[in-house]
Amino acid sequence: MAQEKKFVEEITSMNEDFAQWYTDVVKKSELVDYSSVRGCMIIRPYGYAIWENIQRELDRRFKETGHENVYMPLFIPEGLLQKEKDHVEGFAPEVAWVTHGGQEQLTERLCVRPTSETLFCDHYKNVIQSYRDLPKLYNQWCSVVRWEKTTRPFLRTLEFLWQEGHTAHATAEEAQEETIRMLNVYADFCEEFLAIPVIKGKKTNKEKFAGAQETYTIESLMHDGKALQSGTSHNFGDGFARAFGIQYTDRDNQLKYVHQTSWGMSTRIIGALIMVHGDDSGLVLPPKVAPIQLVIIPVQQHREGVLEKAYELMNRLKGKVRVKIDDSDKMPGWKFSEYEMKGVPLRLEIGPKDIEKNQVVLVRRDNREKLFVSMDELEEKVLQALDTVQRSLYEKALEMREKKTFTARNFEEFSEIIEKTPGFIKAMWCGKRECEDNIKEKTGATARCIPFQQEKISDKCVCCGEKAETMVYWAKAY
Amino acid sequence: MAQEKKFVEEITSMNEDFAQWYTDVVKKSELVDYSSVRGCMIIRPYGYAIWENIQRELDRRFKETGHENVYMPLFIPEGLLQKEKDHVEGFAPEVAWVTHGGQEQLTERLCVRPTSETLFCDHYKNVIQSYRDLPKLYNQWCSVVRWEKTTRPFLRTLEFLWQEGHTAHATAEEAQEETIRMLNVYADFCEEFLAIPVIKGKKTNKEKFAGAQETYTIESLMHDGKALQSGTSHNFGDGFARAFGIQYTDRDNQLKYVHQTSWGMSTRIIGALIMVHGDDSGLVLPPKVAPIQLVIIPVQQHREGVLEKAYELMNRLKGKVRVKIDDSDKMPGWKFSEYEMKGVPLRLEIGPKDIEKNQVVLVRRDNREKLFVSMDELEEKVLQALDTVQRSLYEKALEMREKKTFTARNFEEFSEIIEKTPGFIKAMWCGKRECEDNIKEKTGATARCIPFQQEKISDKCVCCGEKAETMVYWAKAY
Repeated sequence: MAQEKKFVEEITSMNEDFAQWYTDVVKKSELVDYSSVRGCMIIRPYGYAIWENIQRELDRRFKETGHENVYMPLFIPEGLLQKEKDHVEGFAPEVAWVTHGGQEQLTERLCVRPTSETLFCDHYKNVIQSYRDLPKLYNQWCSVVRWEKTTRPFLRTLEFLWQEGHTAHATAEEAQEETIRMLNVYADFCEEFLAIPVIKGKKTNKEKFAGAQETYTIESLMHDGKALQSGTSHNFGDGFARAFGIQYTDRDNQLKYVHQTSWGMSTRIIGALIMVHGDDSGLVLPPKVAPIQLVIIPVQQHREGVLEKAYELMNRLKGKVRVKIDDSDKMPGWKFSEYEMKGVPLRLEIGPKDIEKNQVVLVRRDNREKLFVSMDELEEKVLQALDTVQRSLYEKALEMREKKTFTARNFEEFSEIIEKTPGFIKAMWCGKRECEDNIKEKTGATARCIPFQQEKISDKCVCCGEKAETMVYWAKAY
Repeated sequence: MAQEKKFVEEITSMNEDFAQWYTDVVKKSELVDYSSVRGCMIIRPYGYAIWENIQRELDRRFKETGHENVYMPLFIPEGLLQKEKDHVEGFAPEVAWVTHGGQEQLTERLCVRPTSETLFCDHYKNVIQSYRDLPKLYNQWCSVVRWEKTTRPFLRTLEFLWQEGHTAHATAEEAQEETIRMLNVYADFCEEFLAIPVIKGKKTNKEKFAGAQETYTIESLMHDGKALQSGTSHNFGDGFARAFGIQYTDRDNQLKYVHQTSWGMSTRIIGALIMVHGDDSGLVLPPKVAPIQLVIIPVQQHREGVLEKAYELMNRLKGKVRVKIDDSDKMPGWKFSEYEMKGVPLRLEIGPKDIEKNQVVLVRRDNREKLFVSMDELEEKVLQALDTVQRSLYEKALEMREKKTFTARNFEEFSEIIEKTPGFIKAMWCGKRECEDNIKEKTGATARCIPFQQEKISDKCVCCGEKAETMVYWAKAY
């Protein structure tokens, strides 16, 4: 009863209060629970199953591109964190410090890793001697901690799960190729697997990673017109190598510094998944990432033969799609709402009348379209429908983003868009930090990226009006 | 060159110095590296690939038995850790404490999880209301921290990777069934996948988990005659439920406490893998867990057609076995040693003479046996050989354990065995803690388990000589 009641409660409408809608959805679709630890979330089975699907697919793509997994320690000694100047400045203010182990006070504090560049560098220094040891293409799946003040499930939490790739190369060119290769892996993954269209580009100096020479990013747009940085790929040049002394003997017998990259994607992307595809009935999950792709709901299940038939269909679909049957004693209407809330892409209804007609009813979660399908063609039609839903979700998201992407030629246009129709703003920028700061201060928007695909909106900076050759995507962001 | 040199260095012989042999093997087979963080290891690609295979197989078995994965926070507030009295006494002395987050000093210290019973209980309290919410069958893959004084890679480290299952049930019977079910999952996994024979049994009160009603264990025997606890499964009864207030409304409308279990297996098991199967040439990996199952080493690879043929064979085997080719410019002899050190179960040699004869040479890592195999039967013979190696390793390990399992009827026999022929000792025990303590103090041996399969060695306690009905497996242990 308690279980059922939960699903009658309406969730807040998106348009009424987007933040509350988000909170309602993550709680009521049972993705997360709050914990006794400030700012830390509990990822429940349904949420974790999404993360497992993301992990499996990303990991496959990493291995396909030659990467290997490793595991580095959870702790970083304070002295090690301090080795690269920009890096420590960026991270030291937001780390958790371990000062006691067992009964003893530590002589050197350990921070809980906020990211592991320093640990990888320390290891690379030991295992890289010759050009034969390069490249090193390592990745790690783990959790990291950043001491955030305000937190929201998936979007900003004190602890989050992620992967961090760390690579070392013989030349600057190879490091740059790797940086872009992994940015593309992220972009393709988002578009093909999560049905989230992304903008690829470079971060401005202000927005780049602490210690990076260049940071590249993929940016996606949420339903409320705010952007979300969905994955980043950094080229460190030889900065870390110089700080940590990572050198190799090249073919020409010269000692040279390696060139490094790092790249990461985190449970934050689940926040994007929710806010790009969700609607007022809850989650909407693209089939490829959905823990349950099709739920079978028997109608009038007490009638003879209904449950039997439902199980027969489930057994036919098993192994081909991720299928679940709900034969609990709740009313079908309750079940419909429950699995809509959970974003299950397809619902299969089967009752006595359907059996008579040798058909089933398939209902798409994304647009509620009903398909009457002959039982003889079940497998084929289900796979087709899942494919259609996956593609439709991408197209819908792309359309949404296009509708919410604007151009501004001057500061007035810029301000008006931010206020009235939040979304991406394409506008020219002179390159000065001052203008970036100014825009942030006056509108709340930040430079999301300098996209690879440049357009000439005008020849003047949207902020200062001086000469500008660079087009930037701006937006308020999570 | 540096790379090659490493493999000429002899490793210490097992019989000469087992501890040094172990250290040599973990380092030289590139499983781990030491880190700048005291007691924390870096798991390198080859070591992590073993862990990934273990994870994949265990996770499959957990899911098959109805378990779901979740993720709980890394931190436990001090107050939460203290809720269950025995539990906090067991763990508080060996945890790492976070006292500062960012710039602020915390009002309540957080410990880095040494195990997550308290977090699961805190969550279960929120999500369990009715008998319909039971059972909860959760598992978590993560790292935990215990502030150990002396550490050794895999066997005892400050931080280690593991999985921890935590379940909640309506009745004591169901909890007991689950406890034994998971013990059996561990036992079958060890025997079928890792080729490690285990003894199943119950821990004595002295050796059980802090907060558990009963602890069950699987114990394996290492090459040096020391035991290694390889997995444990705990029945908590309703102890934690009472401490945390986890109650549900049963069908009869009564409020009842749940009954809980937890069970875990860690990267420690990789230590067992090394010490059960390894030999003086390095690692010996059972095919099922081996990252590389077969390595192809071309002989006279500069000769026309050799490399071509080697690649052709690799492509035939790909997807059927985990295969690697080494066509680097090192000498074949170097390569042989390298992959022997790494414990690759099968080596395939192919040279001009083999090509002439339409054959390849397969060499088993475990006993160096050479098999001459017609190329026409390659896939079949390779799969057969892997299967044989897997079974042989189990049998060899079982034989070793049997040879090192002794019985003692009195304390003199017991002491002599411990000193002269270390191994498992089957001996009777009266049930008194005093005798356990006494044996530990005088011989260094501990009660490994009260095996399910009891034998009557005598009717007197091996220590005090009083009446005894319980047979215990004793050993020195890791």
